[in-house]
Amino acid sequence: ISLRGLKSLGVELHCRCIQTESKPIGRHIEKVELIPANSHCEETEIIATLKKTGKEVCLDPEAPWVKKVIQRIMSSSSRR
Amino acid sequence: ISLRGLKSLGVELHCRCIQTESKPIGRHIEKVELIPANSHCEETEIIATLKKTGKEVCLDPEAPWVKKVIQRIMSSSSRR
Repeated sequence: ISLRGLKSLGVELHCRCIQTESKPIGRHIEKVELIPANSHCEETEIIATLKKTGKEVCLDPEAPWVKKVIQRIMSSSSRR
Repeated sequence: ISLRGLKSLGVELHCRCIQTESKPIGRHIEKVELIPANSHCEETEIIATLKKTGKEVCLDPEAPWVKKVIQRIMSSSSRR
């Protein structure tokens, strides 16, 4: 499969995050993408999309506030 | 902001998941998107992208195996 083919499959060929957002921005987050380490990037990456701007921001998987954001999303589903 | 503008911002105007994958497919997952409930969809939604095909599959946020997949991704970052 060609590199372009891979890319069109949404497969990133390198790490997508250069730096991470240090300020807790939990309430501005519309959705979060979790990308486990893979052959192209040995870091787990977390990319949040912000509500108003749709801007993508990288988060530090080890930051306590980031872990809380993920836990809150996962637990909020059971409040039906 | 026009509906089209919203759409281009990546803002979904409705729920994206109709059904969820019941079989534990953890090892086939390339990345996972967590979408908290919002004004357009009152369900928390989890959308996984599969490794080989790049296919998107909805996961049940309350299924134990799904919670484990998320926890594993979050904890794998600290094994550096």
